[in-house]
Amino acid sequence: MHGLSAPPPGGRRIVERCDLLGRPPYSDEAGSLFRPYLGSGYRATLDRIAAWMALADMSVHVDAVGNVVGRYEGAVPDAPALLLGSHVDSVRNGGRYDGMLGVVLGIEVVACFAREGRRFPFALEVIGFGDEEGSRFPAAMLTSRTVAGTRDGFDLSMTDREGISLSEALSEFGLDLATIDEARMTRERVLAYVEAHIEQGPVLEAEGHAVGVVSAIAAQYRYLVTMHGVAGHAGTIAMRLRHDALAAAAEAIAMVERIGRGGPDDLVATVGRLEVAPGAANVVPGDVVFSIDVRAGTNAQRDAAAKAIRHELRQIADRRGIGLEVELQQDLSATPCDGVLTQLMEQAVADVTGAPARVLVSGAGHDAMVMAHLAPVSMLFVRCEKGISHNPAEAVTAADVEIALRAMMDFVRLFERRC
Amino acid sequence: MHGLSAPPPGGRRIVERCDLLGRPPYSDEAGSLFRPYLGSGYRATLDRIAAWMALADMSVHVDAVGNVVGRYEGAVPDAPALLLGSHVDSVRNGGRYDGMLGVVLGIEVVACFAREGRRFPFALEVIGFGDEEGSRFPAAMLTSRTVAGTRDGFDLSMTDREGISLSEALSEFGLDLATIDEARMTRERVLAYVEAHIEQGPVLEAEGHAVGVVSAIAAQYRYLVTMHGVAGHAGTIAMRLRHDALAAAAEAIAMVERIGRGGPDDLVATVGRLEVAPGAANVVPGDVVFSIDVRAGTNAQRDAAAKAIRHELRQIADRRGIGLEVELQQDLSATPCDGVLTQLMEQAVADVTGAPARVLVSGAGHDAMVMAHLAPVSMLFVRCEKGISHNPAEAVTAADVEIALRAMMDFVRLFERRC
Repeated sequence: MHGLSAPPPGGRRIVERCDLLGRPPYSDEAGSLFRPYLGSGYRATLDRIAAWMALADMSVHVDAVGNVVGRYEGAVPDAPALLLGSHVDSVRNGGRYDGMLGVVLGIEVVACFAREGRRFPFALEVIGFGDEEGSRFPAAMLTSRTVAGTRDGFDLSMTDREGISLSEALSEFGLDLATIDEARMTRERVLAYVEAHIEQGPVLEAEGHAVGVVSAIAAQYRYLVTMHGVAGHAGTIAMRLRHDALAAAAEAIAMVERIGRGGPDDLVATVGRLEVAPGAANVVPGDVVFSIDVRAGTNAQRDAAAKAIRHELRQIADRRGIGLEVELQQDLSATPCDGVLTQLMEQAVADVTGAPARVLVSGAGHDAMVMAHLAPVSMLFVRCEKGISHNPAEAVTAADVEIALRAMMDFVRLFERRC
Repeated sequence: MHGLSAPPPGGRRIVERCDLLGRPPYSDEAGSLFRPYLGSGYRATLDRIAAWMALADMSVHVDAVGNVVGRYEGAVPDAPALLLGSHVDSVRNGGRYDGMLGVVLGIEVVACFAREGRRFPFALEVIGFGDEEGSRFPAAMLTSRTVAGTRDGFDLSMTDREGISLSEALSEFGLDLATIDEARMTRERVLAYVEAHIEQGPVLEAEGHAVGVVSAIAAQYRYLVTMHGVAGHAGTIAMRLRHDALAAAAEAIAMVERIGRGGPDDLVATVGRLEVAPGAANVVPGDVVFSIDVRAGTNAQRDAAAKAIRHELRQIADRRGIGLEVELQQDLSATPCDGVLTQLMEQAVADVTGAPARVLVSGAGHDAMVMAHLAPVSMLFVRCEKGISHNPAEAVTAADVEIALRAMMDFVRLFERRC
């Protein structure tokens, strides 16, 4: 076992541990990684993580919703904790670093300090959240929402694909439903939550940065747009007499892209889904349904873009004699990371890399978004190859992870000085 | 029976007869019209048509592929024929006038001349083609191709949805496979083929014409275009780093529409089918497949438009770093209607309406396209409501059909003078 022999450089060990956890028995599928919440691979993974935590001088427990939590005591007993972590579940056919990297890196941070015998005025806790992806039940971030006390909007009766309810799954896993609220942490107990995560995007790679500091998790709107035109024979309806729903949608897609490109770097606007009816080569499209996803680092930027998009949608539809319905399907406010913590993280990155930190907005959601309801949060992104995630091709380099490890350790020391 | 009492005005009778044939037993389905080639509704329809033909002083036979043919002798025996007709099959949930109008109108033309005891130096034949729509087998215009002697590209072993082969269906219908080539007509026997058909488009209605004269059946190209981009997270991939296959396709769709609008009135360019992969709201599209259908009255116009489209597709793909495949799926040359016959038909329409005829290109294919290989062809279009076809809402007015009937009768008289 690695932990018992002379350890390899931390970055490499973190990558190796993530790789190990990408295979059975830690994956429910052979040949690919799928680790749904409370499944068999999940149980094996918690056992493995608990063992690594114990080797890093942490006391370990699994909380009432299946999160694994390791605690490295501070200089005084019962001190409040600086919480490091991310999630341990994966999507089907997922990547090995999404989530797990932040958990294993947190363990390595503690292991390094433990080897030095270093104690802080606060405890260091590492948490592996059980569900971030919605990997088993039809809701995401179930476990961080429980910890942060924002468990509205989901209930224990919801079922997975096999019809097993969340409460049954918790019981089968050996957890006591009566104690579920004990998983909730109090503000007094958590000084801050700090999450390392792969970027899941191409910006750091494109600009040559090993790591980046997250300023905010993006605000998001998701719309479902329906355009109603008039279907007809593609050979017989003169162009000037058409009300082509797809031609209208194409104009809208170009407009969405233009508005997305015209904003700040963290503004993204995407049409990802589109269906045409009747959808035959010789029929002018009668109806088109498509999604619009708009995200930005601040609510104001998102709102301005969304307003412009809705305005132009109406103009396009009116000019073409096309019926238009726009349904708001998702509305998530931006989650700014804590200003002070972000500055500390920037300094830590600059200390380690010798260059100013790249600060960026996270377009994807993370447990930090939920934990911000409980405590100040900060996030450190690690470059990933080609920005690929949720895919077996997901990759990081040990060198980048080593930089992330050192930055995170430096952050802990800087945080100590601010306490 | 109408034919035995004082006849109503021809236009109304033609509409009533089409309406009668829109219901069981002439339709295979109750509540809607579906009359596939060689089905039970088809058989009942042939019987009814044969009876109407006989009442109009025609001798009737069903040829070796199930076309019903009525012959009204000329002033001398065994004279070559002026052939009037269209098709008797329908698509599923079809309209009552598509095809059938031209057959019933042809019978009415003959009935009117027969009442006058009028004979011509040529015979008048009315043909109801059995399959134009591909209503049962996976190929269209089977029966006109047999008559015109262009029966390449389909064989008798092809099967319908139930696995019944064309040869089995012909035998079950009581036809003799050994005599199939007897359905083929010779050039000597056919002076011309003249088809009345609903427009299946909105141009005549939009411009206030009861009928129109077809100058050509459009040339057509159909392409299947594939664009390969790079899929990725809609939240994390900055706009400037994207290779969004749907955004590229949207630009292409707008371009296709622009080129279609920029040409002559009969140029149409349509993207009717489009599929996005992976097709999720939170994923930048990686791959898009779409159709492009280009039609014009001449090959030269079609080719010029298609060349411009292919050129711009390449530019769009290259500028966006998108992989492009363009597959030509269909290539139909334009079928010009016979110049002399078209002039006669224009004159006939002008004689009846007192106004110059509207001459237009047929964007849809018709049996006339096939019959042009055998004889000079002409087509007369009848205005249909809102341009709707292949739909139970398909509608014509008796007044318009009356004008078409009179124009067709005038055409026959003008044709006589040219003989």
